Amino acid sequence: MLNLIQSRLMSAEDVAERLPTRCTIATSGFTTGYPKVIPGAYARKLHEAQERGEECGFNLYTGASTGDELDGVLARTNAMKKRLPFQSTPDVRDRINRGEIEFLDIHLSHVPRYIEHNILDPIDIAIVEAVDVTPEGRIYLTTSSGMTPTYIKYAKEVYIELNRHHPMGLKGYHDVFLPQLPPEGRPIHITHTDDRIGVSYVACNPTKIKGIVETNLPDAGHEFKSPDSVCTRIAEFVLDFILFEISKGRIPAQYLPFQSGVGNIANAVLACLAQDDRFHEIEMYTEVVQDSIFDLLDADKLRFASTSALTFSSEGTARLHREIDELRAKFVIRPQEISNNPEVIRRMGIISMNTALEVDIFGNVNSTHVLGSKMMNGIGGSGDFARNAYISIFMSPSVAKRGDISAFVPMVSHVDHNEHSTQIIVSEYGLADLRGLSPKRRAQEIIEKCAHPDYRDMLRDYLDTGLRHAPGKHTPHDLRHTFDWHLRFLETGSMKYTPTTEA
Amino acid sequence: MLNLIQSRLMSAEDVAERLPTRCTIATSGFTTGYPKVIPGAYARKLHEAQERGEECGFNLYTGASTGDELDGVLARTNAMKKRLPFQSTPDVRDRINRGEIEFLDIHLSHVPRYIEHNILDPIDIAIVEAVDVTPEGRIYLTTSSGMTPTYIKYAKEVYIELNRHHPMGLKGYHDVFLPQLPPEGRPIHITHTDDRIGVSYVACNPTKIKGIVETNLPDAGHEFKSPDSVCTRIAEFVLDFILFEISKGRIPAQYLPFQSGVGNIANAVLACLAQDDRFHEIEMYTEVVQDSIFDLLDADKLRFASTSALTFSSEGTARLHREIDELRAKFVIRPQEISNNPEVIRRMGIISMNTALEVDIFGNVNSTHVLGSKMMNGIGGSGDFARNAYISIFMSPSVAKRGDISAFVPMVSHVDHNEHSTQIIVSEYGLADLRGLSPKRRAQEIIEKCAHPDYRDMLRDYLDTGLRHAPGKHTPHDLRHTFDWHLRFLETGSMKYTPTTEA
Repeated sequence: MLNLIQSRLMSAEDVAERLPTRCTIATSGFTTGYPKVIPGAYARKLHEAQERGEECGFNLYTGASTGDELDGVLARTNAMKKRLPFQSTPDVRDRINRGEIEFLDIHLSHVPRYIEHNILDPIDIAIVEAVDVTPEGRIYLTTSSGMTPTYIKYAKEVYIELNRHHPMGLKGYHDVFLPQLPPEGRPIHITHTDDRIGVSYVACNPTKIKGIVETNLPDAGHEFKSPDSVCTRIAEFVLDFILFEISKGRIPAQYLPFQSGVGNIANAVLACLAQDDRFHEIEMYTEVVQDSIFDLLDADKLRFASTSALTFSSEGTARLHREIDELRAKFVIRPQEISNNPEVIRRMGIISMNTALEVDIFGNVNSTHVLGSKMMNGIGGSGDFARNAYISIFMSPSVAKRGDISAFVPMVSHVDHNEHSTQIIVSEYGLADLRGLSPKRRAQEIIEKCAHPDYRDMLRDYLDTGLRHAPGKHTPHDLRHTFDWHLRFLETGSMKYTPTTEA
Repeated sequence: MLNLIQSRLMSAEDVAERLPTRCTIATSGFTTGYPKVIPGAYARKLHEAQERGEECGFNLYTGASTGDELDGVLARTNAMKKRLPFQSTPDVRDRINRGEIEFLDIHLSHVPRYIEHNILDPIDIAIVEAVDVTPEGRIYLTTSSGMTPTYIKYAKEVYIELNRHHPMGLKGYHDVFLPQLPPEGRPIHITHTDDRIGVSYVACNPTKIKGIVETNLPDAGHEFKSPDSVCTRIAEFVLDFILFEISKGRIPAQYLPFQSGVGNIANAVLACLAQDDRFHEIEMYTEVVQDSIFDLLDADKLRFASTSALTFSSEGTARLHREIDELRAKFVIRPQEISNNPEVIRRMGIISMNTALEVDIFGNVNSTHVLGSKMMNGIGGSGDFARNAYISIFMSPSVAKRGDISAFVPMVSHVDHNEHSTQIIVSEYGLADLRGLSPKRRAQEIIEKCAHPDYRDMLRDYLDTGLRHAPGKHTPHDLRHTFDWHLRFLETGSMKYTPTTEA
């Protein structure tokens, strides 16, 4: 047992050889930290089997999004049957929207329960990226936690990619704790962002570890773009709002922990927080930390960040490696069962900031579906945070496609966050505070504060027609015309009215 | 101070005299336990003021629904401006749907936070029903807790209706505990339905208690109807499902606590649980307990019920009064901040059962809006429970209005519980298990298991058209025809196709 690693060392092809062509595979990976060579070898094996006429088919479970080395190569085998709970790779997305892959779009905090409660197809194989494994089976993960502890616990066999790209200093970044299942559930004792309640490794019966592959590969870069003016405007509205709330006594003067989604707007908010002299001592309780966290560090404003993944660009990763010992006091990486847990989110009073794809005038938010039918990426953790946050903020540029799509519409074509759970909506034109407003008042607020000026008259028209003709005036929808904008876009390429010869 | 009650005794008219004609009033009441005479006196005062040409206007906050003695009389003054968070009185509903009352339809567990976080108009007056008040200001509530502890805490002035209809033996039924606000949030130490973490009264500074009115009045009866065959069929599907889940190891053999919504279907489930020899030792963690709980008691099957209200018929209340000392070991009444708390619901693993108004083929549930615009009652606690439950079940008869309305439609006209949070859908035709299914497969399951046979071909048509024409095949909606059914009902009185002369 003393030399577990050496006794199990093999090549990616050796592992692929052992994997069945029909199975359920669960991997590490939550933006980063996914396996990078075994999937490619497995894909080649599947292609060969398919050439021999063999029917192949596998399910893929991950923490959240991964890179082309996992999702891309496996999707292109056309043997991916079921995929959960989130994805952002073009090859996977295309196959979902062609109806070829069954995609389960699940709240990230629900995935562990679906596994533990024996609801999904059981996991045959777990493939996880690690920096080290001890003879006792202590697995030290790389830059993400996500679903990995749960997948290792429930998988029949575990394969490990030991990624030498990362320093051993990553040990100690993780806090691995999985709550007991009902009826044995007990409180989760996190009351501050930096509380640690678990251990720094995932415990695994070493006999389950069937193979170890050494690699030395970075994650696909999450390159950092400087915020554009639209994102910066949105960020400024958010920061002014937070200070206003403090002045009203609704947010304590020392703030509350922030959650921030993935992407350019989220990056802009953190970049602006770093630059703005009115803010100090920021704490994050979030699922993903991006390069913008370094702006906070450099401004000496980051007290602590709890996350489920470090999602850095190649420069960010290089800096993490250089400062690996200093940064350990600033970060903790938690399983998504904990990072996204409603109990902890509600208790700590998180300020949640997520991006919307589409918002309707009554405050319903679409985060996932283009034109009501096409999957973009998935709901991810946005529902976990928004539903239990102290304040839930949804942000979106007012228009897309050079103005031909309005983010603010009469009715969203898919609801991921409904009017009962949304509070603050922000575009580059302004911030709508929906709290304490009836649907009609929300509509006025969203139209006048957030919608692009080109679309305001059209939205006012829709609301007026509803107020005249709807069977009820509580949420005055005109069901004859709810999706006219989407249909017009499909027909003409623009949501705007096209001039007609009618009077 | 020794005789607080006598020193503050006055008539309902005396209280009304002291209440301003423009103010925010918060009352006790969560189906039962609402004040019954002060509102009437206040309504008479408002009518008189209006006759003198005075402009009157007040906001009304409660725990949930109340009776005509509160909501009805006050709505009929036409001076009710804002109402939250739930209602079920015709006079209030009509005025909401005429656009006269601003109704805030809020998750019940969010209401305390909206008050505590200083988001809603501040409370001027609290009016609460109690069985006793001590000189120190300990207020012992009647049959509901709801929002009352929070309203008493934040109101500037408190008036009490001491209702002599109830015995002093109600003392001890309540467990009053309000969590600390962020950043001081701490775990809520409830791990079993019968855990008590608070005190049996609401503490109030006695100087805030400005008047006490003695009454002797029952709540408006919540009369209990024997379950009809549709409700019984639904209940049987639910019970069979629970036993199936136990056989699969997905629910522990000793079950998990049940939450059950208000109404006939919920009553039928409990009545069937009582009759079914396969079930023993039931626990409830819910917001409302109805007469059907006595069936469980009589069958010696109720281990314990945690609730926010006892919602009994007049016979049920009489029995409660007769057995007040024995029943104290079986019930606890908690504030809605605790009965509906996501932390506790998730930890204990609640089996949540709520009624749907409308369900679409992709699994989205409408609990609140008729034809997308008319408010029925409100979301209540259904979202608090469904979102964090171990298993969330939504139940509905397949049709309404003698078959002219299908509960199962292409797209719901309002989303209260979205596809990410719904799991089990039940009608009198069958049970659809949506867990682990992509939207397309969910649609097949709902159409073939739950929809009324008269509507199945129409739903299959919709799905087929979507699969051919939708821009994406993940959720194959046909936005041209999403609301044809609702529009047809508005035009013809039926959702069914009407025969036409077209080929």
